[in-house]
Amino acid sequence: MEAAGGEQHETRRRAGAGLALLGVVYSSLLLNAIFVAHHFLSPSRLLLRDDGCGCGLTWSLQAAREAEAVAAVECSGHGQVFVDGVAGEDGRPGCECNSCFGGPDCSLRTPNCTADADSGNPLFLEPYWRRHAAASAVVFSGWHRMSYTTTGGFQSVELERQIRRLHGAVGNAVADDKHLVFASGSLQLINALVHALSPDATAASPPSRVVAAAPYYPAYRQQTSMFDGREYRWAGTTALWANSSRANSTDGTFIEFVTSPNNPDALLREPVLRGSAAAIVDHAYYWPHFTHIPAPADEDIMMFTVSKPSGHAGSRFGWALIRDDEVAKRALEYLRDSNMGASRDTQLRMLGIFKFMLANLRGKDDIFAFGHDVMRSRWLRLSAAVSRTRRITLQKIAPQYCTYFGRVREPSPAYAWVKCEMEEDEDCYEALLKANIITRSGVQYEASSRYTRISLLKSDDDFDVLMERLEDLVDADKYDDSNGSSSM
Amino acid sequence: MEAAGGEQHETRRRAGAGLALLGVVYSSLLLNAIFVAHHFLSPSRLLLRDDGCGCGLTWSLQAAREAEAVAAVECSGHGQVFVDGVAGEDGRPGCECNSCFGGPDCSLRTPNCTADADSGNPLFLEPYWRRHAAASAVVFSGWHRMSYTTTGGFQSVELERQIRRLHGAVGNAVADDKHLVFASGSLQLINALVHALSPDATAASPPSRVVAAAPYYPAYRQQTSMFDGREYRWAGTTALWANSSRANSTDGTFIEFVTSPNNPDALLREPVLRGSAAAIVDHAYYWPHFTHIPAPADEDIMMFTVSKPSGHAGSRFGWALIRDDEVAKRALEYLRDSNMGASRDTQLRMLGIFKFMLANLRGKDDIFAFGHDVMRSRWLRLSAAVSRTRRITLQKIAPQYCTYFGRVREPSPAYAWVKCEMEEDEDCYEALLKANIITRSGVQYEASSRYTRISLLKSDDDFDVLMERLEDLVDADKYDDSNGSSSM
Repeated sequence: MEAAGGEQHETRRRAGAGLALLGVVYSSLLLNAIFVAHHFLSPSRLLLRDDGCGCGLTWSLQAAREAEAVAAVECSGHGQVFVDGVAGEDGRPGCECNSCFGGPDCSLRTPNCTADADSGNPLFLEPYWRRHAAASAVVFSGWHRMSYTTTGGFQSVELERQIRRLHGAVGNAVADDKHLVFASGSLQLINALVHALSPDATAASPPSRVVAAAPYYPAYRQQTSMFDGREYRWAGTTALWANSSRANSTDGTFIEFVTSPNNPDALLREPVLRGSAAAIVDHAYYWPHFTHIPAPADEDIMMFTVSKPSGHAGSRFGWALIRDDEVAKRALEYLRDSNMGASRDTQLRMLGIFKFMLANLRGKDDIFAFGHDVMRSRWLRLSAAVSRTRRITLQKIAPQYCTYFGRVREPSPAYAWVKCEMEEDEDCYEALLKANIITRSGVQYEASSRYTRISLLKSDDDFDVLMERLEDLVDADKYDDSNGSSSM
Repeated sequence: MEAAGGEQHETRRRAGAGLALLGVVYSSLLLNAIFVAHHFLSPSRLLLRDDGCGCGLTWSLQAAREAEAVAAVECSGHGQVFVDGVAGEDGRPGCECNSCFGGPDCSLRTPNCTADADSGNPLFLEPYWRRHAAASAVVFSGWHRMSYTTTGGFQSVELERQIRRLHGAVGNAVADDKHLVFASGSLQLINALVHALSPDATAASPPSRVVAAAPYYPAYRQQTSMFDGREYRWAGTTALWANSSRANSTDGTFIEFVTSPNNPDALLREPVLRGSAAAIVDHAYYWPHFTHIPAPADEDIMMFTVSKPSGHAGSRFGWALIRDDEVAKRALEYLRDSNMGASRDTQLRMLGIFKFMLANLRGKDDIFAFGHDVMRSRWLRLSAAVSRTRRITLQKIAPQYCTYFGRVREPSPAYAWVKCEMEEDEDCYEALLKANIITRSGVQYEASSRYTRISLLKSDDDFDVLMERLEDLVDADKYDDSNGSSSM
């Protein structure tokens, strides 16, 4: 019994072990079967045939890979690759280097490079968008918005909604009681609004007079003069002219451009002519990274551009807020007849940009806090350098309470408005050019040639080079002082 | 022995089976381990943290998913969803239905719907781009081309290269010896070129006279009149005006617009004034899906727009080919000063579109073969219907040899130029409107009101509705005939 019992026990033990082992085998095989089935029969693989990629993506994959491959190329931190860059010998776009950098990967510094502080290129915000790559990316299908019309004629209703919300949340403009008019850059709005405010050409009334207080943004004058060239007129059909050699015409109301904060000197401005003129108020820089916001602006006609708040200058997108129905209608007609408004491609891209800005206001990823930090520190560095020389001075800007940040904020202007103080530096632009700094002469702003504008809206590299040239200037100035000479 | 041998054999057999089973267990467990390791330790998961997706994508993934999700929504084939569409109650953009369709998924047909054959909206090419979704998609990073400048000032050098290659490969224009000037739509080029060809406003010479042979595209007249409004003038700084109430205060050369093929009647055109005028030749429709190409065009100034060859009207992208250096320079200056040219976003998008068109010329995915098939069949259907009535007639277009297709091709015009033949139908636009067809009156083209334009550049749905209304008209006409009445 003992032995028989032992043998029975052993048999049961073996049978139990066998069963357990079989259990393991079956479980393991089942698990393998699940893995194999998952690998080969997953819905994405079955339905979307997506090339072994588990994202569930199909048609957007190739473009997404191309964009990420290009973004991953290193240009030493002094340049970048764009998908539409010029293709090199390998057929791929190469690094486009910042000014004063060169070489295939932009690692070569140009010695004694001239600082270009001319245009107001808002590249200081590029690092912000790199940091928020996922939220600011956008994918276009080949058939996106092929039609002339979108949800609101030529304007995206959703983008309108986001822009109104942004003005409300930032508190820089009252948008709700105004028409919103899109254009391909605020530059296009200059003439659209002048046109909208002027009497019909056929009316007996004299033409409007377009003015601005100096120093003013030169495009107001340039564009008004160009479009008012009186260089041509419509003369009917060729039938009138084909078989013959027939070759046989005082003062109006004012339109005043007001830029606030002003370009070049960053001061908040009011109309000068007031009641006697219609004012077009250009608020391109009325955002918390460039100026304090005392209160929401509420003028009848206001201009804005995406190039300053978000930095997307290349997208060519601007908008106007217009109180009067008739003025808005005439501006829209002008835009329709000149180019049918802003690209619908750009409108889609801007939608994501605006949504992200709005979603992060006053949070740790606030674009205005980021922008203000950069611009304030640039102004501090510039002011510190300039304070060490008697040769040039900058405009005075006091710290002011800002309703957006809810505190007194330090100055952070987009431009330095420079005055040359030495008697011999009558042409301040030329004086700085001799110090290898390209600026924009005060003459262009209808101000004295003693003034010139230094742009602070550039990339970090550009600003660093500018500071180097300024330090050289300050040092040379000191050296000259100690030698009793004042030539530069 | 027998028994003992049998027992030994049985023991060996059991041991062998056990070993085999163990082998299976170990193998299976090893395979489990490999699968698990593969699943949790794959390089993409470890290095890119891409959410379990093996594509190697990171920042573009969210946007790609959004675009594909939107593209996958079904709108019954009679509408579509766009990423920037108006958001519904669920926060997602909903179906935007084609004309004459409604309901949440566009499945509801509007009974007796009026056919809109007014504008030349090139949606007939949308199915082409849906079919080639992967090759025509594009992904934008948040920092793409933030700068004002791109590789060639305001123009992408790569896009220029593709456009020149396309003209060469299609054989519709000689581009190599000309300047290429981009604009936000060819509409913007109208005035840019008139400006470039006109004398300076300050010069003593009289203004240019802008003309065209009827019937002509109305925008030439509208825009020239609008920009020559003489409604305003630059009057200097406010300092001149603030403290006072000061308020005191022939004929030139010809510029001829020539559209070829002509809009509205599809005829190939030549300048009428010839030597006595500068000609701006608008070749918007000089592509093989709309007309035969007898030879590459080689005029001094030619206009093109992407809206006709590729169908991307919403992108607002046009270009000019200009022989003369000075004219090209003046046109570029005009574009710089009015809006700094076409959106850099659009330029990137167009690059992919042009590359794909070019890579597939004369192959099975040729866009012009596709477009010609659609437009020819529309013309055939329209002609067949119209031939059954005496009420209206169409322009005659003969089959012609086309150098692009290398054969005689059937007519496939963008527009039908309709003449109302009945005495009482003096206003052809009104006559068709009574039949619930919206057209564009001949009067707009400075032609007789007996003519009106029917656009064939619409979606398939639009064309089907147009054909329904036309069949109604033809049938009513027959019914009237048999009753001896001629009222409609």
